[in-house]
Amino acid sequence: MAGSSFGTLFRITTWGESHGQGLGAVIDGCPAGLSLCEEDIQRFLDRRKPGQSAYVTQRRESDRARIMSGVFEGRTTGTPISILIMNEDQHSADYSDIALVYRPGHADYTYDAKYGFRDYRGGGRSSGRETAARVAAGAVAAKLLEQLGIKVCAYSQCIGGNGIDYDRFDIAERDRNPFAMPDAEAAKAVEADAQTAIGSLDSLGGIIECVVSNMPAGLGEPVFDKLDANLAKAVLSIGAVKGFEIGDGFMVAELKGSENNDEFYMEKGKVRKRTNHSGGVLGGISDGGDIVFRAAVKPTPSIASLQNTVTRDGEDTSVAVRGRHDPMIVPRAVVVVEAMTACTIADMLLQNACSRLENIEKIYEGRI
Amino acid sequence: MAGSSFGTLFRITTWGESHGQGLGAVIDGCPAGLSLCEEDIQRFLDRRKPGQSAYVTQRRESDRARIMSGVFEGRTTGTPISILIMNEDQHSADYSDIALVYRPGHADYTYDAKYGFRDYRGGGRSSGRETAARVAAGAVAAKLLEQLGIKVCAYSQCIGGNGIDYDRFDIAERDRNPFAMPDAEAAKAVEADAQTAIGSLDSLGGIIECVVSNMPAGLGEPVFDKLDANLAKAVLSIGAVKGFEIGDGFMVAELKGSENNDEFYMEKGKVRKRTNHSGGVLGGISDGGDIVFRAAVKPTPSIASLQNTVTRDGEDTSVAVRGRHDPMIVPRAVVVVEAMTACTIADMLLQNACSRLENIEKIYEGRI
Amino acid sequence: MAGSSFGTLFRITTWGESHGQGLGAVIDGCPAGLSLCEEDIQRFLDRRKPGQSAYVTQRRESDRARIMSGVFEGRTTGTPISILIMNEDQHSADYSDIALVYRPGHADYTYDAKYGFRDYRGGGRSSGRETAARVAAGAVAAKLLEQLGIKVCAYSQCIGGNGIDYDRFDIAERDRNPFAMPDAEAAKAVEADAQTAIGSLDSLGGIIECVVSNMPAGLGEPVFDKLDANLAKAVLSIGAVKGFEIGDGFMVAELKGSENNDEFYMEKGKVRKRTNHSGGVLGGISDGGDIVFRAAVKPTPSIASLQNTVTRDGEDTSVAVRGRHDPMIVPRAVVVVEAMTACTIADMLLQNACSRLENIEKIYEGRI
Amino acid sequence: MAGSSFGTLFRITTWGESHGQGLGAVIDGCPAGLSLCEEDIQRFLDRRKPGQSAYVTQRRESDRARIMSGVFEGRTTGTPISILIMNEDQHSADYSDIALVYRPGHADYTYDAKYGFRDYRGGGRSSGRETAARVAAGAVAAKLLEQLGIKVCAYSQCIGGNGIDYDRFDIAERDRNPFAMPDAEAAKAVEADAQTAIGSLDSLGGIIECVVSNMPAGLGEPVFDKLDANLAKAVLSIGAVKGFEIGDGFMVAELKGSENNDEFYMEKGKVRKRTNHSGGVLGGISDGGDIVFRAAVKPTPSIASLQNTVTRDGEDTSVAVRGRHDPMIVPRAVVVVEAMTACTIADMLLQNACSRLENIEKIYEGRI
Repeated sequence: MAGSSFGTLFRITTWGESHGQGLGAVIDGCPAGLSLCEEDIQRFLDRRKPGQSAYVTQRRESDRARIMSGVFEGRTTGTPISILIMNEDQHSADYSDIALVYRPGHADYTYDAKYGFRDYRGGGRSSGRETAARVAAGAVAAKLLEQLGIKVCAYSQCIGGNGIDYDRFDIAERDRNPFAMPDAEAAKAVEADAQTAIGSLDSLGGIIECVVSNMPAGLGEPVFDKLDANLAKAVLSIGAVKGFEIGDGFMVAELKGSENNDEFYMEKGKVRKRTNHSGGVLGGISDGGDIVFRAAVKPTPSIASLQNTVTRDGEDTSVAVRGRHDPMIVPRAVVVVEAMTACTIADMLLQNACSRLENIEKIYEGRI
Repeated sequence: MAGSSFGTLFRITTWGESHGQGLGAVIDGCPAGLSLCEEDIQRFLDRRKPGQSAYVTQRRESDRARIMSGVFEGRTTGTPISILIMNEDQHSADYSDIALVYRPGHADYTYDAKYGFRDYRGGGRSSGRETAARVAAGAVAAKLLEQLGIKVCAYSQCIGGNGIDYDRFDIAERDRNPFAMPDAEAAKAVEADAQTAIGSLDSLGGIIECVVSNMPAGLGEPVFDKLDANLAKAVLSIGAVKGFEIGDGFMVAELKGSENNDEFYMEKGKVRKRTNHSGGVLGGISDGGDIVFRAAVKPTPSIASLQNTVTRDGEDTSVAVRGRHDPMIVPRAVVVVEAMTACTIADMLLQNACSRLENIEKIYEGRI
Repeated sequence: MAGSSFGTLFRITTWGESHGQGLGAVIDGCPAGLSLCEEDIQRFLDRRKPGQSAYVTQRRESDRARIMSGVFEGRTTGTPISILIMNEDQHSADYSDIALVYRPGHADYTYDAKYGFRDYRGGGRSSGRETAARVAAGAVAAKLLEQLGIKVCAYSQCIGGNGIDYDRFDIAERDRNPFAMPDAEAAKAVEADAQTAIGSLDSLGGIIECVVSNMPAGLGEPVFDKLDANLAKAVLSIGAVKGFEIGDGFMVAELKGSENNDEFYMEKGKVRKRTNHSGGVLGGISDGGDIVFRAAVKPTPSIASLQNTVTRDGEDTSVAVRGRHDPMIVPRAVVVVEAMTACTIADMLLQNACSRLENIEKIYEGRI
Repeated sequence: MAGSSFGTLFRITTWGESHGQGLGAVIDGCPAGLSLCEEDIQRFLDRRKPGQSAYVTQRRESDRARIMSGVFEGRTTGTPISILIMNEDQHSADYSDIALVYRPGHADYTYDAKYGFRDYRGGGRSSGRETAARVAAGAVAAKLLEQLGIKVCAYSQCIGGNGIDYDRFDIAERDRNPFAMPDAEAAKAVEADAQTAIGSLDSLGGIIECVVSNMPAGLGEPVFDKLDANLAKAVLSIGAVKGFEIGDGFMVAELKGSENNDEFYMEKGKVRKRTNHSGGVLGGISDGGDIVFRAAVKPTPSIASLQNTVTRDGEDTSVAVRGRHDPMIVPRAVVVVEAMTACTIADMLLQNACSRLENIEKIYEGRI
């Protein structure tokens, strides 16, 4: 498989390098009959587009998505949806110095260790640019979920140690500041730190939080394809992510059972929970509450200050990574987290369709 | 797939309920020629066996593993290895009251929401007992890794807020106290808290840390089957785990790029790193350093104090979960984390074998 | 994967060697709520049981199937169904001479070439006995199909060149003669040839035909998982099968388009076909007609006459395969073909459930 | 999965409709370091290009293949290879009449039955044009096999009942006549029949034979992923194929064990077979002999004579399929069979790499 596919029934396959001809995604398994157009995809891609503020890379990438197959007269046909994004504005010259030197915190060395050589231009397949293809695929998944009423929403929860204050939480604010923070004051604090970091040729890490609302109970396949296990994989598969926690997450280490359990109660004939310490998943299956999880995103490894390292040929050396790099990864990764989440939920939604005989009987009723 | 299989090339499939006939694992894809006997598996199973201290459940489960296929004259044959563990000491009566009541923090409700009904005896498939089958499979993976020189080692890093002091770290101590802590003093602090928790009919959560040493560089498949993404899934697929972090993990939110990057240097012709903030993975591929990650484990949801909840029939009620439950999950989960880690590393090790043409040529040399 | 699993959603994994501890199948993905008991499985297994006539092996294998998991109170729970068949009556001594000699027509040499050594007792994993586990799994698939009204029926169409006469076709007759032929006269001709073959220490080949009736249109996934492609794989995966054809099959080489096409017409508001040259599949998707295919089954390779061969150590030698072998494979393979067909159709039935958005909406209606 | 991917380790995913923007294939899992250029792919595509004789469709399709990713400085990088073929010369108007009418022998009805609607232009995804993407992917597989010394070669064995005479077999002749027949006289007989068929607005079927030479023993994964089972699936997944047989194939129904078994002997220290009735596969694993199989290909269903059928709206009607159709499918399908065979063998070759511990040790020797 070699790792470029994700999902079992809603299955995406991505391809493309930073400085190759282009990037793309093939989505196989999207049900037929879903209304879909290029604008649905473009809206997602535009959210990760660089050059929109001083705090992200100044590379210009128009990232126009083109649907090559699988859509006819405005609706998905059930056959593979291929999305193509051609590469532009490739300054290959910027990267010529890294052909021989392993940048600390990057995958240069590990790709060589794995494959024997690598496409070093802009990081090749290990570039953050790879995520454009995921975002395109995620836009299709999000459209499918939206059709059913399910909503995925992510935002920066913390950057450079500056966390949001939930009392000031305003999701509209997320799209007004360059840090994707739903809290204007926290965004200001980040701005100050960002300027300091840029000044000292350094970069910042942070945390992204994601909420899936309107979730049906029952999604997730025991025992290995638990909903939270698949979400963890989806999120950790994003380049710079170093941690995942759901619900109370790492805080459980200090909680008692009586504090971490969510009590059930009945409301209008439905089972509800008084709290959501579980983050919406019990035993790997959605419990009907909101899915709430967080992802830790490391600081951009491309920094302009001098670092010790080695050459491909095994000589000690040092490197200062120049070029047009984001001083922080978090803001542009927010939509990538949403995309991977949408793909995961869409896949589990389809997988769960076959969990009961009565569902199957409903579908084939009158057809056999 | 319905979720009971894990891995692509080293692929395990588990089955079994807490109070059914038994549990088992089928391992398909273990290379032929590996020395393997039942004792190799029993050694792992014995580490999760209950009843070994006052701080774990007093259920008696002998958990004898029997190899049913795939081993001939002491070596694996390359065909599926089936391991069978028969169930014993099932007090089904203990659980009769939970047939109709949803226990908070458990999967009772979510299984019903998914499947329409459930085997309620002891939690059925959602019981922690399910992990016995994973541990059996993990023992085979660990044997394979051991043969190549790779070692997986997990331990309790924190229970009930009592973390280990790395200055006192002693892995031999792990097997001497009932909490699997490599620090005798921390274990004592946990013991005091555990007694308090038991007294107040409550339970404790914690953190497990796992280290994989002697790792080759190059394992992990970009872009979705990253080594850390697959580890995250493996670990989150264990029932009570609510978080996963690798290397600096969630701490990256407060670190700068210059603090989080690991500098490279040469040592005896090999590429080395001065630090290990990455936790041994760069760009989803092992960098030759130790893999270091942590898993957050929630407190046992089965607590004897009274909690509000609902019945299967939609009535509000309350429940106090009686029976023989662990006051904490962490100690017995340590070997489960090792098992899932071993399975993941074994799978990535096999997958990586085909990454280069020269590897394939080496294998078929003289055969074509 | 190493090949011991079959299917995507209705997924079976088998294990076991001819003379090991036992054999088994794990079925993951059977929808919850299906009525199932051991007798459902036993009925299938009994049809492949040896020792029922002079024309099949005289080995005694009671082949009692035991359901180990996944069924509660008479219904499937949605979790893996593990079926265990313990081995009995193993005359390992019968096979000691083949430990070092490669039997012509058998997999002795190829297993050694692949794995470096093999469990030679009774053919190990390559034994026809392996099919017991498939038949057990197929019984579950058949029960699921039956619930929806779909019926799978196979029979011997030809043995030793003696084909059935469709004018005398009587499916009840299939279960009355030892050759599973739905034509008493053809069975008599086979009997005469079989006695001759036994007398000359030889064996006979033949053809199995299989019909699936009451098929819904729409099953099969373009372009690689076509219904007929998956059936072909399912059937060729049975040890002795050397060919597969559907509908007109190899006869198409002599037909014109006007002879091979099936014309459509309307009947009571439904699309029907006047003929069934297609064998029920168009473009890899079921067309609502009966699925009709044939499998070519080679003569038993174990023959008692002397054949030239080589030893494991590379010496020329000769061998006469003694022991209790079937003089023909066809009759006992009939139920194996049914089993693999049922598994394939069940899998495609589930896969197709997600082909349209309206199906998904129907399932989640009122739940989100 | 929805069926657009094939293979486990050498995994191809195709997309595209007859009259959409284009077609493509993504190959994930091709080992790094293989020399590859667009010309390698073009050479294969040119063999299925239409318009090269009077006996294939007169549509003009230049079918230029463009490598979009996965190749750097002339060698594969180990990351996904994306191949893009843009569509040209689409006469959508030709097909407007089939939007509402189901053509006999085509997938028009079955796609509607499955998905609720379809891209009717030129057959959409069910068009033979879909095979261009497979051929592109197969070219990469063939390059990989070639590097190891394995050769795949297919040809027309029979068209319209006119079979080749093996005494006149000349593979060079295959590329000299429009029927891909390695026998000039047989080709002449076909030519006569083809003119008659065209004259009577009809079409012809036939048989393709394929030989894989220089095969290593040991490829194929018991028990479900047998080499011949996977080949059968690969070949039946090609649109018009209705049958598959390997070695003696359906002839086994009339053979005795003594006639069908291949005797082994030693030659220069290697195990050889005196005959090849098995077609190179024993127990699902390659036995070192040539792989020899045949595929039955139905006559082109698009015929210009009038046929009864129904409309999408359930009315009886009749249709004469006009447009630029091949009077026979066989000649252009020859390279498609080669392509699918190459993909299958490449996949089994990689899968088998992990069958023995000693192979794994060889690869990681000195790296751990």
